[in-house]
Amino acid sequence: MKIVKNTVVACCQVAPKIGDLAFNRTLTERAIRSAAHQRAQVVVLPELVQSGYVFNDRDEALSLAETTEGSTLRLWMELARELNIVVVGGFCELLGGGELANSAAMIDPQGLRAVYRKAHLWDAESEIFSAGDATPPVVETVHGRIGMLICYDLEFPEWVRLPALAGAELLCAPVNWPDGPRPLTERPAEVVRVQANASVNRMFIAACDRYGHERGVGWVQGSVIVDADGYPLAGPAEEGGEQILLAALNLGEARNKRISARNDLHQDRRQGLYG
Amino acid sequence: MKIVKNTVVACCQVAPKIGDLAFNRTLTERAIRSAAHQRAQVVVLPELVQSGYVFNDRDEALSLAETTEGSTLRLWMELARELNIVVVGGFCELLGGGELANSAAMIDPQGLRAVYRKAHLWDAESEIFSAGDATPPVVETVHGRIGMLICYDLEFPEWVRLPALAGAELLCAPVNWPDGPRPLTERPAEVVRVQANASVNRMFIAACDRYGHERGVGWVQGSVIVDADGYPLAGPAEEGGEQILLAALNLGEARNKRISARNDLHQDRRQGLYG
Repeated sequence: MKIVKNTVVACCQVAPKIGDLAFNRTLTERAIRSAAHQRAQVVVLPELVQSGYVFNDRDEALSLAETTEGSTLRLWMELARELNIVVVGGFCELLGGGELANSAAMIDPQGLRAVYRKAHLWDAESEIFSAGDATPPVVETVHGRIGMLICYDLEFPEWVRLPALAGAELLCAPVNWPDGPRPLTERPAEVVRVQANASVNRMFIAACDRYGHERGVGWVQGSVIVDADGYPLAGPAEEGGEQILLAALNLGEARNKRISARNDLHQDRRQGLYG
Repeated sequence: MKIVKNTVVACCQVAPKIGDLAFNRTLTERAIRSAAHQRAQVVVLPELVQSGYVFNDRDEALSLAETTEGSTLRLWMELARELNIVVVGGFCELLGGGELANSAAMIDPQGLRAVYRKAHLWDAESEIFSAGDATPPVVETVHGRIGMLICYDLEFPEWVRLPALAGAELLCAPVNWPDGPRPLTERPAEVVRVQANASVNRMFIAACDRYGHERGVGWVQGSVIVDADGYPLAGPAEEGGEQILLAALNLGEARNKRISARNDLHQDRRQGLYG
């Protein structure tokens, strides 16, 4: 009998409050505990869930920023240790010299395993954050190799390719997808791109969106966990709002890039031609 | 008043017969005339529609191959001139030295404008065809800039990026998507990837699939024409079978890569980081 090891992954689609760090800490603690109670082993939180997203200006963001030693990451580290889980979540990071980054942390019972700084900035973010220059990290966890990137990064398949080529079996993507017009009967393009990114890499992706109007901005509320063929295992939920999506993933499947007798999605790349 | 120039694009999802060149010529003539009668200005045909797809071996493919001077391309050139249209279709190409390529031709009233040779070969194709090394061409037509590539090429977003960066407003993709298992309620991943490729480039894509069982192989029958945001304008048709999909595209929209006040999908690329 073949033993299949499944990893339960959760996306916690919650609504942080811009500027209320204490509220957001409590919110994430409640969501993380609830997901873990439902047997989640990897818990993904939205982009900038620590601070909220729609800053009035850079000064406001600066006043809310935390380092990796701040109260929010300390809380997530305590919870990861207590609940024996991996947590991936977004925060407004204070760097040296007063610079800011739109960052995501990966934390497991060992502590802070990696920080990623968003490389492709969306709209007014470029007036607040310094763009990251480092490739999305891939961390060896007890569940398998986990990568992360953030929101608009997903629109650059060349960027998604890097953690995939580095062996990521699961990519965790904290996002805040601003809502926009689309044909009524269509799945949001944001979700479609997650599906395509998964399928061209045979890699699982868990994208965690938020909800709740913030200073006039609404959100797609399209959190989704897709399999290595690009099909959703959980979400996107029609009804929106607060959601804890859960799916059991056999991450080992992502190690096999073969899609026909003679084809391997990564080996078939013709890197030398891509310029 | 702003004048919007629409271009009517057709995908002719037909069923060629393996090995019957005369049948396939008649089939494509009928489809092209029917599409033009419905006001199509750009007509896309499936991959290898000239020969059929499931060759028994290389010798069979060799016996069916044609050069760009062959009867099939001559027919398409006559039709393009007579009907004042652009034709993009796939054929089994005889190269010098008895080599074969899985090729697509772009033909307009001026004649043969470009030939593209598939760079990413699917399964047994690698035992029959030489893989192309040349970047997908982008041709300036009276309707706008049109690029082309073939089937499995679409699973390499780095490859799709090249004609997009070269200014393609419409990408025509002859495909033969072999059918496979998928969740019943899900749109085929092949179609999802077309949508994502369009949306990350703000480029229209017309992918023309085939139907008809051939030596035990069935097809997705997922022909689709998607807009520059990645949403289908025509197809994929639930019922499969023969389809002439039609959509009127304002190709000029694809020249605008802006998606927010500060974001441009192509300028936001961080090429230096992609390795």
